[in-house]
This record gives sequence, C-alpha cells and structure tokens, in this order.
Amino acid sequence: MLNVGKFIQKCGGKAGKAPVIAVAGSTGAVGVEFLRLMEERSTTFSELRLLASSRSAGKKQKFRGQEVVVQEMTKDSFKDVDVAFFSAGGAQSKSFCPVAADAGAVVIDNSSAFRMDPEVPLVVPEVNARQVLNAPKGIIANPNCSTILMNVVAYPIHVEAGLKRVVVSTYQASSGAGAAAMEELKEQARAWVSGKPLPMDIFKRQYIFNLFSHNSKMDPDSGYVEEELKLVNETAKIFAGSEAAKKWKQPFGVTGTCVRVPTLRAHCESINIETHNPISPERARELLAKAPGVTVVDDRVNNKFPEPVDASHKDDCLVGRIRTDATLPDKRGLWLFMSGDQIRKGAALNGIQIMELLLASKGK
Amino acid sequence: MLNVGKFIQKCGGKAGKAPVIAVAGSTGAVGVEFLRLMEERSTTFSELRLLASSRSAGKKQKFRGQEVVVQEMTKDSFKDVDVAFFSAGGAQSKSFCPVAADAGAVVIDNSSAFRMDPEVPLVVPEVNARQVLNAPKGIIANPNCSTILMNVVAYPIHVEAGLKRVVVSTYQASSGAGAAAMEELKEQARAWVSGKPLPMDIFKRQYIFNLFSHNSKMDPDSGYVEEELKLVNETAKIFAGSEAAKKWKQPFGVTGTCVRVPTLRAHCESINIETHNPISPERARELLAKAPGVTVVDDRVNNKFPEPVDASHKDDCLVGRIRTDATLPDKRGLWLFMSGDQIRKGAALNGIQIMELLLASKGK
Repeated sequence: MLNVGKFIQKCGGKAGKAPVIAVAGSTGAVGVEFLRLMEERSTTFSELRLLASSRSAGKKQKFRGQEVVVQEMTKDSFKDVDVAFFSAGGAQSKSFCPVAADAGAVVIDNSSAFRMDPEVPLVVPEVNARQVLNAPKGIIANPNCSTILMNVVAYPIHVEAGLKRVVVSTYQASSGAGAAAMEELKEQARAWVSGKPLPMDIFKRQYIFNLFSHNSKMDPDSGYVEEELKLVNETAKIFAGSEAAKKWKQPFGVTGTCVRVPTLRAHCESINIETHNPISPERARELLAKAPGVTVVDDRVNNKFPEPVDASHKDDCLVGRIRTDATLPDKRGLWLFMSGDQIRKGAALNGIQIMELLLASKGK
Repeated sequence: MLNVGKFIQKCGGKAGKAPVIAVAGSTGAVGVEFLRLMEERSTTFSELRLLASSRSAGKKQKFRGQEVVVQEMTKDSFKDVDVAFFSAGGAQSKSFCPVAADAGAVVIDNSSAFRMDPEVPLVVPEVNARQVLNAPKGIIANPNCSTILMNVVAYPIHVEAGLKRVVVSTYQASSGAGAAAMEELKEQARAWVSGKPLPMDIFKRQYIFNLFSHNSKMDPDSGYVEEELKLVNETAKIFAGSEAAKKWKQPFGVTGTCVRVPTLRAHCESINIETHNPISPERARELLAKAPGVTVVDDRVNNKFPEPVDASHKDDCLVGRIRTDATLPDKRGLWLFMSGDQIRKGAALNGIQIMELLLASKGK
C-alpha cells in the first residue's frame, strides 16, 4: 500500500495512533512557524524529530516548554517517521524527500522541487483537498506562498461565477526571502535612522523606503520571474484538481507582476478577475465571508481594508476592496485586495492543514 | 483676447518678455519643488511672487541664493501676474484661481478643483500638449500624480496599438499626502527603531513596514476611492484631447486599485494593457525608449527594473518589466511596471512644462 494509505490506516481518524513527525528545516522561518502552529493546534505526536543541516545540528529549539535537540538530516533520519514536513530549501528537498518517502513517510514538501511533478499532488486544502490521496510517490507539495494566498480568495469566486482571467499585482513581504531577509530589512531601518550605510547582503539594494521587482530567477526570453510563473502554473494545476473543475472545465488565464515591498511577513495581492458569469460585489462578499480560510475586511465607511500588519500571525487571509470592475461588461469584472501571512498560510499552516486532512481521514 | 493668447503674445517665443510668475502654495512640497525646478531649468522671469496662507506669510524661501519673502495670498495678490502656479489645496484653488485669471494671469492649477471642468484643459504635455490653447477660463489643470505617470508611459503604446483596457495597481509614496506625511513615515521609522509608540497623526495607522488602501475619499456605492476615479476620469479627458484620438476614436477602459506603500517620493504602477492591435515587447520597448519623458529600465539579465529610489528626483518616468501578457491572444496583452517622482513629474514638473509650452509658443 502507498504511504498515504498506510498513514491514514495507522494514524487517521479518532482511533488513529499518534504519528512520528519530522520537521526538516526546523530552524528556518517556516520551520519555526510549523512548530508554533503545532503548539497552537495541540498537534498530537508520538515523537517529534527536528532536522536541519549540519550547521544547525545540536541547537536546541523550545517546544511546549521543553528543549528539543536539532539533529543533522541524513539518509537515516526518517526511520519510523510517519509524516515529514520539509522546508529546508529546494536542494535538500530533492535529495531527502525521496529518502523519507522510501522510508515510508508521507512527505509534505514546501519547496518548489516537486510541485509540477504530475505524480505529486499540489494542494491548497480550501481548493483541492481530495488531491492529497493521489500521491503515488508519497510526496505532497505545498504551493508557493503567493499562489496559496491568491487561490484561497479566488476559489470561492470560481465556484460561483467561473474564472476567465485573473490579473495579479503582488506586494510581497521580506519574509518570502527567509528570516535573514526580514532581518536585513529591519537592519536597514536601523541604519537609515542612525545615518549609517545600509546593509545590502541579501537584496543588494536599498529596501527600506523602496520596492523592487521580485528577485526570483528571471526567464530572459519571456521576461517573467519564477515567482510569476509559479502563480500561473501552480494555480492551473491546483484548480484542475478541484471540485469546481467539473463545472468549469476550461482552464483560465492567470498573469501577474510580482513586487517586493518593505513589509515584514504578510503579502498583499491586488487581484483583478474576469468571470464567465456575472457576479455582484454583494454576492462575492457573501461567498468570501463564508469561505474557509478567509476573513472579509471591507469597511468602506471607515476605509478599513486588508493590511499586512493585520494579516500577520493570522491563519485567515484577509480580503476587501471587493467591487465591480466596470471596464468589463455585465458585472463580469471584480476587484479584490487581499493580505495573508506569508509564513503562516503561505507556507507552514498550509502544510499542517495537509497533515490534518490526512489525520482526519478515516482508516480503511 | 483670452489670457493664454495674451500670455503667448507677450511672453511667448524667443523675443517674448520675461513673465511675472506667482507660485501659490510655495512652501508646500510641490511649491518647493516648483521653485527648485525653476532654478534647475533657469526659468526667466521679471518678478517671482511667492504666495501662501497667512500661516506661512513672512517666511523666507531661498531662490538662486537669495531670500524671497512669502506673501499672504489675497484677492490683490495677482496684479500684473502673467502666470500663476497653484498648489495650495483644492479650497484655495477654488477661491483664488478665478481671481488670478480675472486679473489676467494664466493659471496652472495642481489641485483637483477644475480638472473635470469642460472649459478647463487637463494637460500632460507628452500626451495632449495642444490643449493648453483651449483655456477659455484662463485656467489649465495639472492632472493627478498617478494619472500623469500612467499616461506618460501608456500614451506611446496607445499611438501605435490602440489601448482597449488598462488595469492598474499602484504603489504610492507618502509624498502624495504632502510633506507632513513624508515626515510621519520617517518619524515612524525612528520610533520603531527606538521602540517608542509610532506617531499616527496623519494616516491613523502603522505605515512603516505596512501598506494600505489609498486614503482618499471613498465612494461607498461603487467602492472606489477618489484616487482611482481620477485615474479613470482624468485619463479619459486627457487622451480624448490627444493626437491619437483621431486614430483611436473609441474610448478605452481604465480601472485601478490604489495603494499606499511605505516609500518616500516616487510612485510605482503595475500596468496591464490590452491593445486593439498586436504589439511585441521589443516594439513597445523601442517606442518607450524614444518617448518624451520616459527612460526604459528593463534589464532582465541583471534583474534591474524601475525602483522608487532610482526614480526620485528624476524628471523622466522609469519603465520596465515590458513583456507580453499571454492570457490575451495574439500579442494584444502587455505588462509594464513604472516608477515616477510624484512631486516632480507627478506635480511640479508637469506644471512647469505647461508653462514652458506657452513660453515656447510664438506670439501671433
């Protein structure tokens, strides 16, 4: 039987056994958040194994008041592991996810290494939860942060009115480039205030009081950066495996411009949507208000809409500025503005939700 | 004869007399920039009259090494004035622009007070320069900053391929809300670094490491803020008076989401364009490279594109990320990302260019 099936049989449902959980990359921004979420959500386990590179091995991380020693990730790290969450970078995932899967673990991988592999499901639980079961390699991929956030707010509109074309401009936080990038932004603020030269080790430019085109790898032919291509390709894969794909069979267009802004840990996205069927802002607001993982913040009277500082450390994505784009006919145009915690729903929370989906499944 | 005709007859062309220039709101961010530009551009005048509210009257402003005393703006301030630049707020413009025009001055008004008045031309010199002559009230309006910046980069595309629909998301600097707003953002940085409470007098919220929906007045019915409606309505008026309107008679759709980001004085705009005719990125780059007021910054190899810190204190708007949006068929979709100095081309420079247009006109 395949890993996911075995996992569900052993650990799924109320009678399931507590799993052995491994966190690969436990000392990174996303790894730390994963542990925090396990505390918050009272995740049950029989063993928690923290794994990292040799550089971090031996460090201690606090978990529920106790200190857990970080182990160096090796080929032998995954014996008896039931589920392994990976957020240790693409190279580590490529090397170790198959090892963990071979050892019998269900792997939830936050890197981009396997996302477009046709044998690896790419899952946003609010959109295509059932795909977790189609994981012949034992690996389930966590999508890119801006993809997850956009998908969570766009899906309820898709179910109702059918997406035809989605045009996205992002406002991405420093956290997307890791903990050191967040620190560099803060350090630049301190340097700016004290009149010292700005540290530019990571982004090689002024970041405080500035913004710039997303620093992911550029495809020089198309002119798109990887972050933008992820938004396009990952969304297509995720939505193709959703329930709504039975109703809306035609793929829809997604295009984006990704920008880094000097914020800390929540991304924003300005989303312009063309739909097949008309949809009023009132109906869109109603759908989003009851959608899982979404909180509507759309107070026109008090000019209160989604902001990064409000979305930070929240599970839900905030969405507002819900209004008709009248340049498209017959209420087939809709604007949304959203903010979501990049480290949380954009990475660690989505991963833990995938694990919870499996744990909630009944053993066969 | 109307004010503009008289002005051109008196001051226009090489033989023209040096005009009496009044700057209303000379102590504000835009007024100061207007004076700086007059210095940079060696603007000739026979008298420079600095006007402001009673609060600022009596202050001295440096101009070409000399101190000029600011006078209180009253109904008698405009005697013998040939051209008056107004950036003293909408209420002051409403009261005093007609007074200045009655006194015979050509008024260039940076406020929104007269922009949509059918008898007042709304001018971006790169787009509809000839409209300066159609000013029966003696008033010429300077468009809103985000409108000017978008128009300068969109017009060359329009001339060639015909705009059909323009979808804009903005990244607007603090300067758009005035000098005190820029100062509040800097003060918040200082307070954040020293762990003190953030000053929130102007925006009533955290601005450093945050962003928020543009704080202009909201139309609670449509859900659009004034800044967004300006982008729509002003662009329609400006382009309707352009040369290209003879070729592309149909109005095109403009829609936007306006956002304030924690930058100081240059706005950015992520612009998605649908055109009537196909246009390749190469052709768009070629057109923009030779367009007035535009510098192409589009280095895919070194990931170097327009940034606020590079656009600040520059006359030209920077444009890059020029690429095909493949969700529209047959190269009829184009992305641009631009940055332009909000105080300069977004306000003071555009105003001084209007004055220069008149000064360059030959007397009849």
